[in-house]
Amino acid sequence: MLVLITYDVSTLTNAGQKRLRKVSKICQRYGQRVQNSVFECVVDTTQFAQLKVELSEVINESTDSLRFYQLGKNYKNKVWHIGAKPSIDIEGTLLF
Amino acid sequence: MLVLITYDVSTLTNAGQKRLRKVSKICQRYGQRVQNSVFECVVDTTQFAQLKVELSEVINESTDSLRFYQLGKNYKNKVWHIGAKPSIDIEGTLLF
Repeated sequence: MLVLITYDVSTLTNAGQKRLRKVSKICQRYGQRVQNSVFECVVDTTQFAQLKVELSEVINESTDSLRFYQLGKNYKNKVWHIGAKPSIDIEGTLLF
Repeated sequence: MLVLITYDVSTLTNAGQKRLRKVSKICQRYGQRVQNSVFECVVDTTQFAQLKVELSEVINESTDSLRFYQLGKNYKNKVWHIGAKPSIDIEGTLLF
């Protein structure tokens, strides 16, 4: 299934910048960046659970925000892109 | 249906900063901000089409990126939030 991850990490401090890099690194292991703070990940239920645990261990829950959107298996007709940085289909071919 | 809008607008120039404000203003008319560059909008098919047209008229397609994700009608069990800035249910009650 496709899971979309969006995040706002407060980078006012060095610790915040470090958290941002960690969040980005974790997301890169599960999927691909489509915008600065947006990742698309094709994962199964177990991987999705792991991903949530890993990310929640990194962020500061009082300053950072993490959101997950489950797009299901038939996601290709649920996503539209306009403008720069078209995404690559993580399962193989070009989506857009 | 719930439509998620995510955007990256290049703000290196004054024109870019203006585009960013315009994109944000348009999104605010249709839904609610859940992160800096992420909006959730409950819209019908016509409104969704309008929204795409309005936003595509504002952005610079060579530098800015707009993405739309259609979450359907039964979206409440497809969204998870961790950390700061919990969202308000735009149809009434608190989602989280």
